[in-house]
Amino acid sequence: MTRPPLEGRGGYRVWRRITTRWADNDVYGHVNNIVYYSWFDTVVNGWLIEAGRLDPAESDPIGLVVETACRYARPLAFPQPVDIGLAITDIGKSSVSYALGVFSENALEASAEGRFVHVYVDRKTRRPVELLAAWRKLFESIAR
Amino acid sequence: MTRPPLEGRGGYRVWRRITTRWADNDVYGHVNNIVYYSWFDTVVNGWLIEAGRLDPAESDPIGLVVETACRYARPLAFPQPVDIGLAITDIGKSSVSYALGVFSENALEASAEGRFVHVYVDRKTRRPVELLAAWRKLFESIAR
Amino acid sequence: MTRPPLEGRGGYRVWRRITTRWADNDVYGHVNNIVYYSWFDTVVNGWLIEAGRLDPAESDPIGLVVETACRYARPLAFPQPVDIGLAITDIGKSSVSYALGVFSENALEASAEGRFVHVYVDRKTRRPVELLAAWRKLFESIAR
Amino acid sequence: MTRPPLEGRGGYRVWRRITTRWADNDVYGHVNNIVYYSWFDTVVNGWLIEAGRLDPAESDPIGLVVETACRYARPLAFPQPVDIGLAITDIGKSSVSYALGVFSENALEASAEGRFVHVYVDRKTRRPVELLAAWRKLFESIAR
Repeated sequence: MTRPPLEGRGGYRVWRRITTRWADNDVYGHVNNIVYYSWFDTVVNGWLIEAGRLDPAESDPIGLVVETACRYARPLAFPQPVDIGLAITDIGKSSVSYALGVFSENALEASAEGRFVHVYVDRKTRRPVELLAAWRKLFESIAR
Repeated sequence: MTRPPLEGRGGYRVWRRITTRWADNDVYGHVNNIVYYSWFDTVVNGWLIEAGRLDPAESDPIGLVVETACRYARPLAFPQPVDIGLAITDIGKSSVSYALGVFSENALEASAEGRFVHVYVDRKTRRPVELLAAWRKLFESIAR
Repeated sequence: MTRPPLEGRGGYRVWRRITTRWADNDVYGHVNNIVYYSWFDTVVNGWLIEAGRLDPAESDPIGLVVETACRYARPLAFPQPVDIGLAITDIGKSSVSYALGVFSENALEASAEGRFVHVYVDRKTRRPVELLAAWRKLFESIAR
Repeated sequence: MTRPPLEGRGGYRVWRRITTRWADNDVYGHVNNIVYYSWFDTVVNGWLIEAGRLDPAESDPIGLVVETACRYARPLAFPQPVDIGLAITDIGKSSVSYALGVFSENALEASAEGRFVHVYVDRKTRRPVELLAAWRKLFESIAR
């Protein structure tokens, strides 16, 4: 398996620091593979909330996750905090694709790299809706 | 985004039923995207333990997760149980790729489809090791 | 610390079997202490849903958790399933207290014993409401 | 149910800030009751690691959790961070009891208050061992 190298810090536009938790480590003493996805969810939705685009209880449309992926290169472990970089790699008619880079503090090389695809749907019908200009503009502001 | 259809029940060789939990549902009332990965981990490692190949505290080599992915097609929600199908799609020199299908009870079409890649490493050095014949034989027994 | 013995299987009125997950085990190789609470939540709310009393998206009132507790006596580990027993120990004006027993398969002695207190509140105002007769009757049906 | 008021910020000796996660919120839009326990675990073990007393992979003795409890007074929700205060309320022959206070940023009144009891055991035999003077001194340094 030859795999393309992971993107460095320069590939990301927005940064968030997340504290790890004791239960993130699995029996092998490193952060379990599923925990990275909880960070992706957190950074994407946190960024949308801060940008005033997402109110989990009220906003319409809402973003449903249709695809996620992660490549893991270097282990991480509680109690170290992690830096997560966010960028957008593709803006579709009703969907948006995010890239997420996971870095340990001060590290230049990524520990892991994720992909996270939201499709925007009507809150009630859960059918895809076209992205409005305000959303599109926000997404373009962090496009890679 | 045109995406290939998800594999049906016929594409899987081993089945496990998993009970969902209240906390699996997120604020939108459906199982959160990260939870699917906890099921993949559970089915792959559970199958290896039952086959006598994995003892989390002792066995050597151990499988490190280097890549995971999931496509989500139909939502699921607690309290429904889920059926997870497992098959192997690729056996490398020191790695193995699993396909996982998530189905609600009695459903013929998958709710989600995952990919999960283990690289086998020495427990101490964490360097890749070549798969022994006994492992290879086990993996071939559920190859797609 | 002298502690009263844990209640045996006879102290519970309703039973649920829950499958454990790989990520439930922590670095010491046993189910982490927080996971037991995810089982309590699951059994209480699952029982209320099956009894037709709880629809997480719609029902009113809703039960807010105001107190939980757990004593741990014997370790558990993935991949073993667990049996959870449920009983009600106290019915107040707007609250109800559950006892939960965690048993490994075929074990007579509990691995852990939990306490879980719901206060019923109006879904919108989140102020306590008095339990209706139908709820009270349901709770009495599994009172210890 | 009359319950004693929760301890204020003055009751704690050590502080940690924890970032919340999207998946911490449950279907009612607030942090689920089980998540608080993941914070307790994190603060207690993080403090022990920083004090040089705990190395999850190596140290002996290790602290097993024998009892936890939490009272919930005010809801919390992602994306707000939380401040956790830690103090010790009881030092036994081989056990130690922690109090944990959960506060939202700038809040003087606690959102929740936890109790967390470790018994120290030999890593191999898992039998209780007497606390050494160095541990006892550390525990006394944050006693309430």
